[in-house]
Amino acid sequence: MNNNRLCQMLGIRYPIIAGGMNWVSNAELAAGVSNAGGLGVVVPSAGLPPSGGDPVENLRQHIRKAKQLTDKPIGVNIPLDRKAAKSYAEVAVAEGVSVAIGSAGNPALYTGMLKNAGIKVLHVVASVKHARHAEAVGVDAVVAEGYEAGGHNGLDELTTFVLVPQVADAVKIPVVAAGGIADVRGFLAALLLGADGVQMGTRFLATTECIAHQKLKEAVVNAPDTGTVIVMRKLGVTRSIKTGMTQKYLEAEAKGASIEELKALRYGRARMGLLEGDMEEGDASCGAIAGLIKDIVSAEGVINRIMGDIPQALNKLNGKLNIGGKY
Amino acid sequence: MNNNRLCQMLGIRYPIIAGGMNWVSNAELAAGVSNAGGLGVVVPSAGLPPSGGDPVENLRQHIRKAKQLTDKPIGVNIPLDRKAAKSYAEVAVAEGVSVAIGSAGNPALYTGMLKNAGIKVLHVVASVKHARHAEAVGVDAVVAEGYEAGGHNGLDELTTFVLVPQVADAVKIPVVAAGGIADVRGFLAALLLGADGVQMGTRFLATTECIAHQKLKEAVVNAPDTGTVIVMRKLGVTRSIKTGMTQKYLEAEAKGASIEELKALRYGRARMGLLEGDMEEGDASCGAIAGLIKDIVSAEGVINRIMGDIPQALNKLNGKLNIGGKY
Repeated sequence: MNNNRLCQMLGIRYPIIAGGMNWVSNAELAAGVSNAGGLGVVVPSAGLPPSGGDPVENLRQHIRKAKQLTDKPIGVNIPLDRKAAKSYAEVAVAEGVSVAIGSAGNPALYTGMLKNAGIKVLHVVASVKHARHAEAVGVDAVVAEGYEAGGHNGLDELTTFVLVPQVADAVKIPVVAAGGIADVRGFLAALLLGADGVQMGTRFLATTECIAHQKLKEAVVNAPDTGTVIVMRKLGVTRSIKTGMTQKYLEAEAKGASIEELKALRYGRARMGLLEGDMEEGDASCGAIAGLIKDIVSAEGVINRIMGDIPQALNKLNGKLNIGGKY
Repeated sequence: MNNNRLCQMLGIRYPIIAGGMNWVSNAELAAGVSNAGGLGVVVPSAGLPPSGGDPVENLRQHIRKAKQLTDKPIGVNIPLDRKAAKSYAEVAVAEGVSVAIGSAGNPALYTGMLKNAGIKVLHVVASVKHARHAEAVGVDAVVAEGYEAGGHNGLDELTTFVLVPQVADAVKIPVVAAGGIADVRGFLAALLLGADGVQMGTRFLATTECIAHQKLKEAVVNAPDTGTVIVMRKLGVTRSIKTGMTQKYLEAEAKGASIEELKALRYGRARMGLLEGDMEEGDASCGAIAGLIKDIVSAEGVINRIMGDIPQALNKLNGKLNIGGKY
């Protein structure tokens, strides 16, 4: 018996979803997360070669491989701002995934089509307004993603701490908290703030199954609390691990570089950072919680550690609340 | 018997501190918070007239008045970047406050002097490095303040969600979480993230005792989730409630205005916003959690509500964790 409504909805044991990470969220990582009781996801760009390749066909192959590696539910991330978004949704339907998580676009686009195919639809939001809209167009649950998250963030810069309770108050559907979560403390704090479950990206980046380059994984493990930075504030708000490239970018931005100059510095660097591990010239989206991550373990290790640490974390909380018989 | 180490250290019943708010943290609000079991604080600029006045003497009078209004501990906020900082510390010693909370400067300056007078010294930090430094120079506890907070924030933009657990891991002294907290969910989430207690500013701004202008209190109550914004990104990072002035400022910033032009737009506007309630021309520091605040109540009401809501919040958490017999 599992009373968590997100777990019930998605058919998973633990309310932990792997955040879709461009280039790196592949079949092996997804299966690792799902086999451990969470929800693993694959992305269209997973492991694509420098030459590009066909992300639609790539998505199909990663779904198929993930389904070979686990009999548990698998999800896909659909970046709705891409030209191929509809094709991604069609692949999700054709290959029979359990969950589709939309982001960076209008949730009205393919929610009906996906739901008609029996797929649960989640949508990533960064404000109350967008959460209400997602619910209104039939999305099954929202992922409330704070400013702490790696990659593209909302322009309003609402953090996990302020976004989650306000989204939880605004919608009736389940809420998944994302951004800044990497251990049992963040997991439980997110649930207390009003979420039904969590989505973690960066914690799953530093796992053995992840195809991110070893140098990037080590950079995450070695990152201090100040190890990430916002680039592209004028071109959207994107959080990356600090590299030689982000330093150059911020210096150019401070000197008043044009949008074209900034684009030239930043665009086309993600594969270099994520898959080639070039921490000088490359760019790698990374959450602000990198500083808390101290080891590279399996996806199962990540999930089991969080679940195993719950009793001790609750005991600590109760000790702090022992403030005079009654509150 | 109170087992919370922050409560033990400060001699208070509940681990809730009122954040020092320039212009508005006066004797009545401080006494209201302390009488309700938290720690109230006064600031040198509380209620000063447009002509300025003497903030040192003003601080002394507010301490004296607060001590007339409560027999519980009272704190002072010492902005360490001000010329009069040493005088503020001397007033704290002379008037015998219980707690001094330093911010925006070097904690080494007056910690020894204050501690020799039997005053507990807290210091506001926004990164692990500064937390470690504060502990090393003898501070009794750190206030880990996230990017959500109103007023001046750290340049690294570390949010409450990522800052608190990393500071808690880095120091042995008690940690107070600040930024984004306004209800029982934030209170408990902060404790779970590793804090021993919380500091709240904006929630106490919207109280009956607070001398902030009624128009500002109403603006807080009516603020949506996106109701605050960062101004002065080039001059420090300051969070304010959105006003006509912040709109003009951001437009000027986007057009590439000079630092001098930006200063002219922003400086000298705080009293107008906070005490005169001018939501067009004034500026008012305000936390990102304003959107969660829906009413103006007494300071005691704020504290009693949080404490009273704890059992229900923990029950909700336990329900979400009922995920299959064991985790």
